[in-house]
Order: sequence, then structure tokens, then C-alpha cells
Amino acid sequence: MDWDHVTHLAADVVAKAQAAGVMIATAESCTGGLICGALTEIAGSSAVVDRGFVTYSNEAKQEMLGVSAETLAAHGAVSPQTAEAMAAGALERSNAHIAVSVTGIAGPGGGSANKPVGTVDFGLAVKGAETRTCRKQFATSERSAIRLATVEKALQLISNAIESSSKL
Amino acid sequence: MDWDHVTHLAADVVAKAQAAGVMIATAESCTGGLICGALTEIAGSSAVVDRGFVTYSNEAKQEMLGVSAETLAAHGAVSPQTAEAMAAGALERSNAHIAVSVTGIAGPGGGSANKPVGTVDFGLAVKGAETRTCRKQFATSERSAIRLATVEKALQLISNAIESSSKL
Repeated sequence: MDWDHVTHLAADVVAKAQAAGVMIATAESCTGGLICGALTEIAGSSAVVDRGFVTYSNEAKQEMLGVSAETLAAHGAVSPQTAEAMAAGALERSNAHIAVSVTGIAGPGGGSANKPVGTVDFGLAVKGAETRTCRKQFATSERSAIRLATVEKALQLISNAIESSSKL
Repeated sequence: MDWDHVTHLAADVVAKAQAAGVMIATAESCTGGLICGALTEIAGSSAVVDRGFVTYSNEAKQEMLGVSAETLAAHGAVSPQTAEAMAAGALERSNAHIAVSVTGIAGPGGGSANKPVGTVDFGLAVKGAETRTCRKQFATSERSAIRLATVEKALQLISNAIESSSKL
């Protein structure tokens, strides 16, 4: 698992999106822009990447994506509810057909018993479909590895979504 | 020049920003999120990174950062004027004290006689100071290398700006 593999995945996503004629948006917290950075590594990605929201602070999640203060207070920034609101907000506030979101605990700080370091919530919003979420608990506490694994999973989610909007 | 060096630079920026008590925002086109991705690789970066705007499409530059259609039409997406408007927009639409912007031609397509592949315009907006721009013409036509060099230059600009808002 390395950046070469990520670039390979990104090339696959860009090719599929071009073939399907869909645009992509990203809403990133713990990855800080690396999902969109991976997609745009591919020449020709401007045809399928519309924009990315890097909402690192809670204020950014609210102001850029419309995540409600209530959702953040009730469930926390790392929660399926926040991931869902981030993905839905990115879809609504862009020209994309598919938006992926990630919010997680990359560490070394910030972990808890319920949400240890390596916990990442993903959201996937597709035009005309219900927004879905899933949680991964990555089996590493290394910040860089958690972020890399998160980028990979997000790219896989987009790839699956292009193939069939019913998968997450 | 590699990603280890970028991470080293990012660590330096995060440490300086923490010491100075300033928040950072990014506005990225050709780097697609990698500047913010580099900063957030550093543990503790949440104290100094507010948000990032990845404005890959012209619509995103307008909607997310307030770049005017007139500026884009008159000068193009890769221009000092657009870079300036992107940085100013990022500063205005965030809680940051310093915002850096980049817009360039990473190739392989999109180059012209006036703006060959490797042309990148940078903007730097600092609260209470005039927004500045500079242009780099990187001596490579390799997409990945242009993006890497752009991230490095952007991190250096932020670092200089923290040390003294008079430098660009």
C-alpha cells in the first residue's frame, strides 16, 4: 500500500468518470486534501474533478458544507452523521454528480475508547440517490498510514459509485 | 526535491504558525489539495490549518472564492490577477490570518507560447497587508514534478509570510 497504488486507483477513477461523463467533488477532513490531490495527479482530471472542500476545522464544516452545529455537538466531527452531512453538502454546493467525504482520527492525539485513532467515517452522495456512510477502523496508529488508507478507501468508494450507485 | 522535503517544510510552517498563533487557509488549483494535504500531514496541524479551497474548475474559483468572471475572461485562470483574487477570497472566506493560492499549468496539455507548461502564479494574502503575487516558470514539463515544486514554493511563501508579512 503506497502512493503508487493510490495514483493507480486515481487513474482508474478518472477514466471511469470520463467514460460515464460524471463530475466529482470531495469533502475532506483528516486527509486534508489528499483525495482531491490524488485525483488531480492524473492528466485530464480537469474534465471530471469539479472542486474539493478541505474542512479541517468545525467552522469550515459548517460554513463550507452546511454541517449543522447540532450534528457536530450531538455526534462529534468524526461520526456517520457528520460524514453524511459533509458529502450531501459537497454534492449540493458543487456541479458534481458524486461527492465523497471523510472525517476521522489520524492521530496521534484525539482518540478515545469509542473512537480510537484510525477511526474514519466516509460519506458518499450521488445525485438522485440516498447519501450513504460507512466506518472503517484502520489497524494502524500511524498518522501517515491512516491517511493513505483513507484516500484509498475513498477512491474505491467513488469507483464503485460510478459503476453502480447502489454500492458503498 | 521530494515529498520528504515537502513534509519537512510543512513541519516548519506548522511550528512557526503555532508559535505565532496564526491560522492558515489554502486556495489551490493545479496542486488540487496537496498544499493543504502536506500541512495536515503534521500532527497538531489542526491548531493552525483552518480550511482549504480546491478550486479546480472556473466555476469553483468563482463560487468558492469570489473570483470574478471578468478577471477569468480578461486574464485567464492562470494569471497573477486570478491568483490574487483566489488568495484574497480565501482570506476573506475563512478564519485564517494567511492564505496562499496557486494556479498553474501542470500539463501535459494547456500550455501556450505565453504560458507554457510549468507556469504557476502564486498569491499570498495576509490580514492587514496588501495581497501579493509572484510567477514561477518551473524548468520541467513533468506534471508530478511541477505540482511538487509548486507545493514547495507555496510552503516557503507561507513560512516567509509568518516571519515577515513584507516578504513574498
